[in-house]
Amino acid sequence: MKILLLNPNTTQAMTDNMAQIARAAVGDRAEIIPVTATRGFPYIASRAEAQIAGALVLEMIAEHADTVDAVVIAAFGDPGLAGARDLFDLPIVGMAEASVMTAAMLGDSFVVVTFSPLMKRWYDECVHSTGMGNRFKGVRSPEKAPEQLLDVQTDLRSDLIALATAAATRGHADVVILGGAPLAGLATQVAAEVPAIVVDPITSAVLQAVTLIQMTATATDAPRFTKPAPKRSVGLSPPLAIAINHGGTQGEP
Amino acid sequence: MKILLLNPNTTQAMTDNMAQIARAAVGDRAEIIPVTATRGFPYIASRAEAQIAGALVLEMIAEHADTVDAVVIAAFGDPGLAGARDLFDLPIVGMAEASVMTAAMLGDSFVVVTFSPLMKRWYDECVHSTGMGNRFKGVRSPEKAPEQLLDVQTDLRSDLIALATAAATRGHADVVILGGAPLAGLATQVAAEVPAIVVDPITSAVLQAVTLIQMTATATDAPRFTKPAPKRSVGLSPPLAIAINHGGTQGEP
Amino acid sequence: MKILLLNPNTTQAMTDNMAQIARAAVGDRAEIIPVTATRGFPYIASRAEAQIAGALVLEMIAEHADTVDAVVIAAFGDPGLAGARDLFDLPIVGMAEASVMTAAMLGDSFVVVTFSPLMKRWYDECVHSTGMGNRFKGVRSPEKAPEQLLDVQTDLRSDLIALATAAATRGHADVVILGGAPLAGLATQVAAEVPAIVVDPITSAVLQAVTLIQMTATATDAPRFTKPAPKRSVGLSPPLAIAINHGGTQGEP
Amino acid sequence: MKILLLNPNTTQAMTDNMAQIARAAVGDRAEIIPVTATRGFPYIASRAEAQIAGALVLEMIAEHADTVDAVVIAAFGDPGLAGARDLFDLPIVGMAEASVMTAAMLGDSFVVVTFSPLMKRWYDECVHSTGMGNRFKGVRSPEKAPEQLLDVQTDLRSDLIALATAAATRGHADVVILGGAPLAGLATQVAAEVPAIVVDPITSAVLQAVTLIQMTATATDAPRFTKPAPKRSVGLSPPLAIAINHGGTQGEP
Amino acid sequence: MKILLLNPNTTQAMTDNMAQIARAAVGDRAEIIPVTATRGFPYIASRAEAQIAGALVLEMIAEHADTVDAVVIAAFGDPGLAGARDLFDLPIVGMAEASVMTAAMLGDSFVVVTFSPLMKRWYDECVHSTGMGNRFKGVRSPEKAPEQLLDVQTDLRSDLIALATAAATRGHADVVILGGAPLAGLATQVAAEVPAIVVDPITSAVLQAVTLIQMTATATDAPRFTKPAPKRSVGLSPPLAIAINHGGTQGEP
Amino acid sequence: MKILLLNPNTTQAMTDNMAQIARAAVGDRAEIIPVTATRGFPYIASRAEAQIAGALVLEMIAEHADTVDAVVIAAFGDPGLAGARDLFDLPIVGMAEASVMTAAMLGDSFVVVTFSPLMKRWYDECVHSTGMGNRFKGVRSPEKAPEQLLDVQTDLRSDLIALATAAATRGHADVVILGGAPLAGLATQVAAEVPAIVVDPITSAVLQAVTLIQMTATATDAPRFTKPAPKRSVGLSPPLAIAINHGGTQGEP
Repeated sequence: MKILLLNPNTTQAMTDNMAQIARAAVGDRAEIIPVTATRGFPYIASRAEAQIAGALVLEMIAEHADTVDAVVIAAFGDPGLAGARDLFDLPIVGMAEASVMTAAMLGDSFVVVTFSPLMKRWYDECVHSTGMGNRFKGVRSPEKAPEQLLDVQTDLRSDLIALATAAATRGHADVVILGGAPLAGLATQVAAEVPAIVVDPITSAVLQAVTLIQMTATATDAPRFTKPAPKRSVGLSPPLAIAINHGGTQGEP
Repeated sequence: MKILLLNPNTTQAMTDNMAQIARAAVGDRAEIIPVTATRGFPYIASRAEAQIAGALVLEMIAEHADTVDAVVIAAFGDPGLAGARDLFDLPIVGMAEASVMTAAMLGDSFVVVTFSPLMKRWYDECVHSTGMGNRFKGVRSPEKAPEQLLDVQTDLRSDLIALATAAATRGHADVVILGGAPLAGLATQVAAEVPAIVVDPITSAVLQAVTLIQMTATATDAPRFTKPAPKRSVGLSPPLAIAINHGGTQGEP
Repeated sequence: MKILLLNPNTTQAMTDNMAQIARAAVGDRAEIIPVTATRGFPYIASRAEAQIAGALVLEMIAEHADTVDAVVIAAFGDPGLAGARDLFDLPIVGMAEASVMTAAMLGDSFVVVTFSPLMKRWYDECVHSTGMGNRFKGVRSPEKAPEQLLDVQTDLRSDLIALATAAATRGHADVVILGGAPLAGLATQVAAEVPAIVVDPITSAVLQAVTLIQMTATATDAPRFTKPAPKRSVGLSPPLAIAINHGGTQGEP
Repeated sequence: MKILLLNPNTTQAMTDNMAQIARAAVGDRAEIIPVTATRGFPYIASRAEAQIAGALVLEMIAEHADTVDAVVIAAFGDPGLAGARDLFDLPIVGMAEASVMTAAMLGDSFVVVTFSPLMKRWYDECVHSTGMGNRFKGVRSPEKAPEQLLDVQTDLRSDLIALATAAATRGHADVVILGGAPLAGLATQVAAEVPAIVVDPITSAVLQAVTLIQMTATATDAPRFTKPAPKRSVGLSPPLAIAINHGGTQGEP
Repeated sequence: MKILLLNPNTTQAMTDNMAQIARAAVGDRAEIIPVTATRGFPYIASRAEAQIAGALVLEMIAEHADTVDAVVIAAFGDPGLAGARDLFDLPIVGMAEASVMTAAMLGDSFVVVTFSPLMKRWYDECVHSTGMGNRFKGVRSPEKAPEQLLDVQTDLRSDLIALATAAATRGHADVVILGGAPLAGLATQVAAEVPAIVVDPITSAVLQAVTLIQMTATATDAPRFTKPAPKRSVGLSPPLAIAINHGGTQGEP
Repeated sequence: MKILLLNPNTTQAMTDNMAQIARAAVGDRAEIIPVTATRGFPYIASRAEAQIAGALVLEMIAEHADTVDAVVIAAFGDPGLAGARDLFDLPIVGMAEASVMTAAMLGDSFVVVTFSPLMKRWYDECVHSTGMGNRFKGVRSPEKAPEQLLDVQTDLRSDLIALATAAATRGHADVVILGGAPLAGLATQVAAEVPAIVVDPITSAVLQAVTLIQMTATATDAPRFTKPAPKRSVGLSPPLAIAINHGGTQGEP
């Protein structure tokens, strides 16, 4: 099986790191196909950016949907997730949603620990939109945004462990999600130092993709009643226009 | 004052009709500046389409933000609203949100009556995202989608009156919002035949825009703490890239 | 159009101040007709007082309903709002509800900043009863009640700015409502010093009244299904008794 | 112990019937002191009427607070309950709230069955305001309002049994509250014909009053921090003015 | 009437203390029949323990159901409550639920103050499961668990008063429930020192049991539609097996 | 890796069927170790039965915890899940919870379709307790309970397809969970006939167990702060007593 690891950020180094973690997670069960956005932002951090990046996500999926078995949107706020899920007939996994659902099977309550206060609002809104707000104990971050993202795993290591520990001991959270692509892979390295279960979003996401591919394998022929009606469009990338028009060309619905 | 009446659909006739209603509503208090999307869909009806159109909304606002005093996003599901509000320093009004807030000041509970069952999911989600789900009694529509949108006001007139009446008499709704751009202007024509208060979304939206312009007139110099940090980007329309970068060019944050 | 600016407190100076602000807000679009309660309390601050004042509000509206086009209940907790809206066939605007709905169109989340901790419980309950509790980040006030209300705008100016600023910077609130009639008019004076949008309730309320009058102008002949049945009564003021009996006299329903 | 059975309706026959049921319920454990409103409505059925009657409730309690140990507000929508509880230092029991809390100890979910569709909105809102909306399965009533209230217990007996039975068998409700003073006492007569536990509100209310008096007997000297501050007033009945001013006269807070 | 005071903990001294308080509360209105678990835990403090103890609760009720009129489950987290209520045709009262419902009739909002942080999670979950989470302001306890439970009423007296006082003055809670069997009876002793109404759970529970017995006395012959179907079983205590099989033996449903 | 497939029902045939499905799902990734309850009920269908079976679940896990890597509680209502998760240091997967979380990653909203109306209440409560109630559209079942469970997959096949189809077409559900062990394995057989994604709970559960084992593999040395304190007990099965006492014997905490 093939999983599209779609990084809606333009930072190739993030993609490379996440692809490596993803491959370690799935082993030979799946092939990881990483792609990086060629338009957009080095690192999405707000709803305006997510609005734009989410449209690019649809475009990128449309280019690859015929050749993969599932898609992982590899940005913690899950840009484009709902639209993609409505539009395409294969499992679409959001990194945040997959982490949240995984966390919910490991404990009663969870927090998201991240690297910058600038991510709080978007991540908070994203978790609430999964429907699991009542088991969610908030986003925790250092008080200041880091000057650069490249080395946050080493620069902020002790800060993030302290935040995760406080979430467990004072906040009574069972599970800590280390949210944000710059923290990908850190969970396994700090797990032994945090008195809670620590979840890595990219690992969650690709493993959930494997499960969802297997779960839905027999269902590929079933029509989906709740799918949007076909629609003509103007000015979209051709693959996306065709997807939205259910395979028809743009001009004939 | 100038209000940008931004139709994120590509159908010029809808823009023309809404502009006429908007002008009748604001009289000489404001100038209505209508724009129609040149890319996208004739009529947005799903979350995938809203994801794409919402990004175009940001682009269109960026082109006009310097020359208007407020923006009305003239599609009932409010594509791009949250991102636009975060990004731009002028009032951004969603047609659905403005209707909902107006309805909430006219009665305890409201319904949305619309022209097609295909709109239900998106409209329902949109109303819930305003936070007013607990005063909302659902979206009601004819069972079948109309074959074309041009004449729905005449073709479906009696159906829509019946749906609105049932919402009031059996559903105990105080207010009926006639949702969807194809129904713009119908409210005043059917109000006398519906035993509830009937709200026209485009009228709500432009009148709320007038109010918000006046309410925030003295605040233009205040910095907004919760505004996203400036961000470089690749491949966006130049005005949008500059807006996202807080006036800086794309390459220098 | 005529707007009844109904102060359910007995303090004439408050009415005068609010009338001045209201007139500045509506200009020549509407005539403001201020009335002050002749029974009740100098300043309502609890649910017991609101229960009593709310009944007076109905009585006061009944006296003027035939000669005005909308009513603004000019006390932040909106005493009598629900009953008045059920009973009378013209727009009834609550100062708190109008502020909340206006704030909801200006940002994601809002706080109420007020002058005394004694108001917190009532204001908090009032905001929740609007249905917008999930976008509300609480009531903030100085820790001690002021000794007198007349000069709170000057005495507490810096305290209120500090509370509003903290709500924005630490509380991530987009909008600050300055709640309570004694703070009427302060918003425009402090807006430039607060890193959030600051909303004046009385301005919100009268501008919303103007909008609601215009929105419902064509609907005056429509029966309201959800209106209470006519009811006889004993001992009410004659205009209120007649209103409750749908125009019949007290003795004949 | 003495319990004020306060009927905020002006119908003496209702008071008499409820007093008889209350006395049968409490036996010699408490003395029932019935009072009937001398102003207001024969039977409260809307929020406007409840606003007015709730103010009268405060006035009536103020007249008797010194000579009774608890108050039962004997109207199902609990007019004036919150204000009364804030204001007076003795247990205040609402007939609806007491029924709801009692029902919640008898089963998972409950419905309210009442005699007229005109009561639905007010009762529904009242139950939700107790905070138990998530165990509440709605108000059920005959489709038409009865022509008179005097004989509803006999006229509607089979209809009400059918509604209660459907609530249990199709609605999976464990408990049925027979709401509304005109149904007082009917519960015991139909209990054997309904496949659910049937709750009589007035019995619930007076038994809860007995319990609350006993529970709080040792607490009479404790100050209540959350009590409203003393307040001067104009034009209230002297006992109420004194209660609101914490025993001071009207003119000196 | 006879009330089974069922202590699901194995500590006889707790049962003795609670029985004494219960008898003082009910006087000659009811006979208190105390029983203590012979298996299980000295003091239940987690959901795992509650799962086990809840099954014992069903077993213990089955042994006594024929000879008592109501059951009080005398542990604050109400182990086994929902199952017992479904299974047995007599009132089943949970100590936590009864306290919560009683508190809700005494004020708007309540807290639970308890003796150990180890109880917080279970108590918190228990209160939310009553459906009253929105009037609940949390569990408060000393930061450290006490070394032994026997003398917590004297050892922690001033700490608990301070916690209760802070809940009232800073937390604006109207009512304080002293949660946990080791605090049984403390409420009356500290009531005068706490500026809020203080509720004793065991007193609440037995008084509510008295009320529920009286409320349902006439309903004993009514079938309960929502009762589970009869079911055969293996390895249960004979009385419980028979109860679950609706009086049939284990082998024949 | 080894997964304990714990059937808390006493019906061996169910265990056999579920083990076969589980093995087909995990292939050679994991060894499935099925166990069947030797006490309890042929098929759990109520909260009373779940209370008892949940205690047996803890006992059964305690016997095997040292020799397996994860546990699947193979009954749809997840008896004992919360307690087991608190108590044991390995992933505990509930069949209902795993289905719900999986469904939530496949679509916006889901229903549970089951074979008997007798399961509705328990399943409904179970789904709500996962925290995902707001994406849940209810439990649907035939109106009558089947006479025996053995052949429900064939007897009810067309009924269940019709219920699932109606949930999709009229209920707008994206995903249908076929709930209840007697329906294990049916999902793949009917998927092509239902216009929605159909989820098999046992497949979901074992695949999630595989994922959770992998996710937490590196975390085994981390202490869990929120774990209950060690506790002595009386009369429990020795392995369970030891587990609850954190490895200590029963008599020494």
